[in-house]
Amino acid sequence: MELWFTERETDNIKVQWKVNKTLYSKKSPFQQVDIVEFTEFGRALVLDGIIQTTIFDEFIYHEMIAHVPLYIHQKPERVMVVGGGDGGTVREVLKHPTIKQVDLVEIDKEVVESCKKYLPELAGCLADPRVNVYNVDGFKFVEEKEGYYDVIIIDSSDPIGPAIGLFAKPFYQNVYKALKGDGLFTAQTESPLFNSQLIRDVYSGIKEIFPIYYLYTAQVPTYSIGPWTFTLGSKKYKKEDARLYDENMKLRYFNKEIQRSTFDLPQYIKELL
Amino acid sequence: MELWFTERETDNIKVQWKVNKTLYSKKSPFQQVDIVEFTEFGRALVLDGIIQTTIFDEFIYHEMIAHVPLYIHQKPERVMVVGGGDGGTVREVLKHPTIKQVDLVEIDKEVVESCKKYLPELAGCLADPRVNVYNVDGFKFVEEKEGYYDVIIIDSSDPIGPAIGLFAKPFYQNVYKALKGDGLFTAQTESPLFNSQLIRDVYSGIKEIFPIYYLYTAQVPTYSIGPWTFTLGSKKYKKEDARLYDENMKLRYFNKEIQRSTFDLPQYIKELL
Repeated sequence: MELWFTERETDNIKVQWKVNKTLYSKKSPFQQVDIVEFTEFGRALVLDGIIQTTIFDEFIYHEMIAHVPLYIHQKPERVMVVGGGDGGTVREVLKHPTIKQVDLVEIDKEVVESCKKYLPELAGCLADPRVNVYNVDGFKFVEEKEGYYDVIIIDSSDPIGPAIGLFAKPFYQNVYKALKGDGLFTAQTESPLFNSQLIRDVYSGIKEIFPIYYLYTAQVPTYSIGPWTFTLGSKKYKKEDARLYDENMKLRYFNKEIQRSTFDLPQYIKELL
Repeated sequence: MELWFTERETDNIKVQWKVNKTLYSKKSPFQQVDIVEFTEFGRALVLDGIIQTTIFDEFIYHEMIAHVPLYIHQKPERVMVVGGGDGGTVREVLKHPTIKQVDLVEIDKEVVESCKKYLPELAGCLADPRVNVYNVDGFKFVEEKEGYYDVIIIDSSDPIGPAIGLFAKPFYQNVYKALKGDGLFTAQTESPLFNSQLIRDVYSGIKEIFPIYYLYTAQVPTYSIGPWTFTLGSKKYKKEDARLYDENMKLRYFNKEIQRSTFDLPQYIKELL
């Protein structure tokens, strides 16, 4: 029996992935949570039918969402990750030696528990004593903090379903407030080919709140046939302030060349902004 | 009636594109030639069931295969394009003011004629008086030239079917011979995710022939869920010699930032080499 998983990129483009088997399947109070094993890309977390992360290529997204802001910050100690219940972003954050505390705010406990069991390469790090996991609404959690975090990473799912409030200006205003005076944040902001209006809206919102702001991209195979974007807002540090990548970290995507060229955008993406 | 075109990325991953209509369909002596109109990406050339180019994203590939080598050359006048019968690469080459002659070597006349009719945005440039079109075998044409070209661009289809000989060391040796003493070439070399062995083989072959050699990438949505690669071999000029991008060219992907970071590779691709 051949099993194929179909993911809709748009109404007119779909990507199909051959599946060896389903490892886990549950409807949580928030979404459908599935963990499958793709023939080509290994074990993967799927939420409401959309691939969140796969063992094969997760390093690309997790390294780019974590290390770009963390190296720009001069001494990151206290970090919040909103979403990212799979643990991959937390794992990358923990590689920085100055880190003292990582607060993971994942609304859906089911995501965390299923990943601990089936994607230990990502979620195993959640056992680290520096990590606190909060299964609460990210919007509310951020709203209650003030001048507390060095870096905030918005590792959300797509802007449909539980993550929808995490792409709006009120949320970014709360992120600003929750950060210390020299804090900075990064958010995943979808595809420039298929979500260009969202990217423009987020960017223009962040411009009004943060003095320093950038768009950057990475090529994440399982998210899109096109590139993926991240938007970064900073209170004080600029990209030129980034501390040089430490090769002892032995990352698999991020290196000194990628660090140097992180914010170099192709013309058609520059023109979006 | 809903029509969907399915393209096999690997045995375990397929991409499906909704089709408005088929504009042209013919079996040439070399391959099946189709021109379709995708709902999302516009008119496209398809050879033996594989998408070669679409109106929507063709600028990405054509700019990166042409302008990277052409700007590194100090005064490109005589250029050969092998493959690329759709005309997109030739169009980009012609933007350089020093160009005097472009020889397009496309084995399949059917490709050129159908693109002139249905993809004039790409093939219209073939009417330029500086362009000569040869409907002959690229391998043989290159073999017969000596010290003649400034830049050679291998804009081939995949290494199955007519293009298979264009990825092998004997061909690159002939390319070396066909170039002038300061000539350089670039070839499209497939996906680092799915064709990593081919990239290694080509790169190690080119290292033995050319004193200067690089791999670079671009993100071409219609070719792969992953990045695409190009391999460049040069007799004399290094990447640092590149003349600065002229903004009056008004390109849509290539700009001074992309020029600066062309050869910056993510760690997993660096480690392939």
